Amino acid sequence: MSEKASVIFPKMALIGIGLIGSSIARAARKHGLVEQIVCSARTHDTRRVAQELKLVDQAFEQAIDAVKDADLVILCTPLGTYSKLAEEIAPHLKKGALLTDVGSVKQMVVDAIEPHIPDGVDFVAAHPVAGSEKSGPAAGYADLFRNRWLIITPSAKSTDAAIDKLSRFWSEMGSNVERMDPAHHDLVLAITSHVPHLIAYNIVGTADELSEVTRSEVIKYSAGGFRDFTRIAASDPTMWRDVFLNNKDAVLEMLGRFTEDLTALQRAIRRDDGDTLFEVFTRTRAIRRQIIDAGQETAEPDFGRAATHEDE
Amino acid sequence: MSEKASVIFPKMALIGIGLIGSSIARAARKHGLVEQIVCSARTHDTRRVAQELKLVDQAFEQAIDAVKDADLVILCTPLGTYSKLAEEIAPHLKKGALLTDVGSVKQMVVDAIEPHIPDGVDFVAAHPVAGSEKSGPAAGYADLFRNRWLIITPSAKSTDAAIDKLSRFWSEMGSNVERMDPAHHDLVLAITSHVPHLIAYNIVGTADELSEVTRSEVIKYSAGGFRDFTRIAASDPTMWRDVFLNNKDAVLEMLGRFTEDLTALQRAIRRDDGDTLFEVFTRTRAIRRQIIDAGQETAEPDFGRAATHEDE
Repeated sequence: MSEKASVIFPKMALIGIGLIGSSIARAARKHGLVEQIVCSARTHDTRRVAQELKLVDQAFEQAIDAVKDADLVILCTPLGTYSKLAEEIAPHLKKGALLTDVGSVKQMVVDAIEPHIPDGVDFVAAHPVAGSEKSGPAAGYADLFRNRWLIITPSAKSTDAAIDKLSRFWSEMGSNVERMDPAHHDLVLAITSHVPHLIAYNIVGTADELSEVTRSEVIKYSAGGFRDFTRIAASDPTMWRDVFLNNKDAVLEMLGRFTEDLTALQRAIRRDDGDTLFEVFTRTRAIRRQIIDAGQETAEPDFGRAATHEDE
Repeated sequence: MSEKASVIFPKMALIGIGLIGSSIARAARKHGLVEQIVCSARTHDTRRVAQELKLVDQAFEQAIDAVKDADLVILCTPLGTYSKLAEEIAPHLKKGALLTDVGSVKQMVVDAIEPHIPDGVDFVAAHPVAGSEKSGPAAGYADLFRNRWLIITPSAKSTDAAIDKLSRFWSEMGSNVERMDPAHHDLVLAITSHVPHLIAYNIVGTADELSEVTRSEVIKYSAGGFRDFTRIAASDPTMWRDVFLNNKDAVLEMLGRFTEDLTALQRAIRRDDGDTLFEVFTRTRAIRRQIIDAGQETAEPDFGRAATHEDE
C-alpha cells in the first residue's frame, strides 16, 4: 500500500456515512485514490458532522443528488435500504460508473440490486470484514481496513475490469482482497460473524432480565468473561437487525448447529461428564493460536486491554 | 494501595502456582505483604519455572511440605483437587494459620473444605474476579488484581479477624473487596463468567466442526466477531471443566434462560420480526456503557487492540 497511489475514481459518492462510510472517506483521501468525495445522509446531524470533519466535499440529503457524475458509488447504509435505494439511484448513475456496497450479507444484495442496474453501469458487491462497536461518522478511521479482508462476490453485472478496479481501490486502503460466491460468503459470515453477534446480544439480554442477580452485580463482576460479549452487543442495532433479516437461512442453519452442540455440553454438565467438557475445551484452544498466527488478532493477554483501562 | 505496606503474613504457601498463584506471589512481594513465599506444584517443570523466575523461596512437590509453618495458605489449583488437598494438608496446618482459596465457585468449596478444618485454623473462601486466557506461572503479573473485585464468601469457620486480615491482604494488592453469600456468588458468577465461557467454548467448537466452511475460512474472517470468543475459549481446560462440574445447578439454571431467550430471537428471525430484534439489540447497548463507566472495561473501540496487532 502506498501513500502516493494515483487516482482510481475521480469522484466518489458515499450513500450513508457512518463508521464504514467515513472510514472509506478517510482512507481513500489518505491514499490519494479519489479527487472528490460527496455523500448523502438522511439526517442533518450526520451531514453536518461529515462536513465539519472535512470527510466530504459536499453532503446531500438525497442519494440521487450524490450519485450525479460519480465514478464510484458505495452503498454504506443498512441492508434494509438497498433495494429501494438501488431503484431510486439507478436512472441517475453515469455511464461507466461502478456501483458497489459494504453490506455484511451478499446473496440478498445481489438479488436486490442487480435487477435495477442499467446497461453501461457495473455492479460489484463487496464486504470489508472490519468494523468496531462504535457507529457514526466520527467513529471512523483511515486504518480500519488495514490488514483486514475485503470479500468481493462477483455477479452477472460485474465485469472483470470493474472487479480489478475495485480490488485495487481496496488493496490501496490496506485490505487483502478475496473473491467468493455470494451464497458461500453468507454461510462463512453466518458462523464467523452473524451467529457470534446474535449470541452476544442474547447473553447480554439474558443477564439484563434476571431478578436474582442485579444489574449492578452483572456490571461489577463482568470482568469474569461477560464484558467480552458486551462489546459486540453494543454494535449498531439497525445494521444488525437487517443482517439477520437478510441472511435468515444461513443464520438459522448455523444457529441450529450451535444449539445442538450447546445441548450436548449441557448434557455433559448434568451428567458430570468431565471428559467431554475437557475434550471440547482443549480443542478450542488451538484455534485462537491460529487466528493470532494469521495476523487477525493480537497475542496480548486480555486483548492487551489491561494496559489501557487500569486507571479508569 | 501502598508500595510499603507492612507484612501481613510472614510465611505464605501457594498450593499450585499457575496464572493466579504466580500473580499473587508477584503482587504480595511487590507490596511487601509477606516475608517468605513457598509453593507446591505437581510437575517438575512448574517448580523449575517458579524458582527460575524467583517467584518463591522454595518449591515443593507435596502440599504438606509447603504448608508447614505457613501463616497463609492459598489453594490455587483446579477446584476438583480441593477436597482431597484439604483433607491431606489439614493435620499439617499451623495453629493460627489462615486457609483460603481462589476458586471460581464458592458453595462447593465451603462444603468440600470446612469439614476438614481443625480447631485453631481459620478458613475464608475467596475469589479474585480477574484472569486472562493465558495459564502457567510465567503468565502471571503483579497488577492482575488491580481495580478488580475480590469476593469473600464467609462461612462457619471464618472469624471476623481472619476475614479482616485477608481483606487487607487483597486490598493491598489493589483489589476491591466485597463479601457475599457463597450460593449467591455462584449464581452471579454463573451469568457473568461461567455461561459466557461455556457459550464461547461452544461457538468455537461448532465452527471447528463445519464441513461447508473450512477452518482456514473461519480463521481468515474471524475479525467479524468470532475472534472475540476465541479469547475466553482459550482458557485453561482443566480449570473450566472443574468450574462446570462444581457449579452445576447455577450454570444449568442460567443456561436454561439463555437458551429460552435465544429461541425467542431465533423465532423472531424466522418470522421476519425486525421489531423484536431491534428492541433487544438496543437494550443491550446500554449495558456496555455502564461497564465502562464502572471502570471494568476499556472505552477504546475494539478493546483498543487495533493499535497492537496492525503489523503482526
